[in-house]
Amino acid sequence: MAKTLGLHIIADLYGVNPDLIDREEDIRHLLENSVKAGELTKISSHFYQFNPHGATGVILLAESHISIHTWPEHKTATVDVFTCGDPSKAYRAMDYIINSLSPTHVDKKVFDRGIIEDSKGKDVLWIMSKAGCC
Amino acid sequence: MAKTLGLHIIADLYGVNPDLIDREEDIRHLLENSVKAGELTKISSHFYQFNPHGATGVILLAESHISIHTWPEHKTATVDVFTCGDPSKAYRAMDYIINSLSPTHVDKKVFDRGIIEDSKGKDVLWIMSKAGCC
Repeated sequence: MAKTLGLHIIADLYGVNPDLIDREEDIRHLLENSVKAGELTKISSHFYQFNPHGATGVILLAESHISIHTWPEHKTATVDVFTCGDPSKAYRAMDYIINSLSPTHVDKKVFDRGIIEDSKGKDVLWIMSKAGCC
Repeated sequence: MAKTLGLHIIADLYGVNPDLIDREEDIRHLLENSVKAGELTKISSHFYQFNPHGATGVILLAESHISIHTWPEHKTATVDVFTCGDPSKAYRAMDYIINSLSPTHVDKKVFDRGIIEDSKGKDVLWIMSKAGCC
């Protein structure tokens, strides 16, 4: 039986008010709050202001990552939420971002990432070797 | 006529030698070199070591981002390369990572991100307002 290691939601947001996505501090605030909305665990966050327009940012999570890249001159933002563990957390984080930016149109896709055969289990020999067992 | 703002390659790598993806310093080296292979422009890079196994990391690019999350106990790594501009750079960066990790199987998908109607052009009024023109 297969199981998946992660859930990845990608969303392209169109018709966004450009003033909401132009500044690094605004997308930082947006993504930090999405982490709270999803009850996710932040490791670190990193943002960058482009000149003259747009910003980019990522939050590394214990559960994987959230990223955003913005083109305010096109009223467009691309957002990724990739989490392992409880899938509802990814949906809650993405919903927070979409609701906050109120795009006129969203192109959203959802993928399972890392599909493994549960029957094969873990690489026990390697794990034991790392633990100094063999 | 439509044009796309970015190209996103996602790849799940299976059957990877776990010793190649267990340590933060190894995936840092891998991703930093993929940036060079793709002739991409690094803004900043961020990595984290999980305990007991696996690591996570992202490089913010002027062109968007590269990320990796690893599960050495499952011989699995998930990799994203998302770039705007010349699409060949994304392929070269991803090819570098895949060739370096030599997985037995790869599940790879490619997406256009941010598809805009070129005929609509940019939001000129907003751009002018930001430039203090109106």
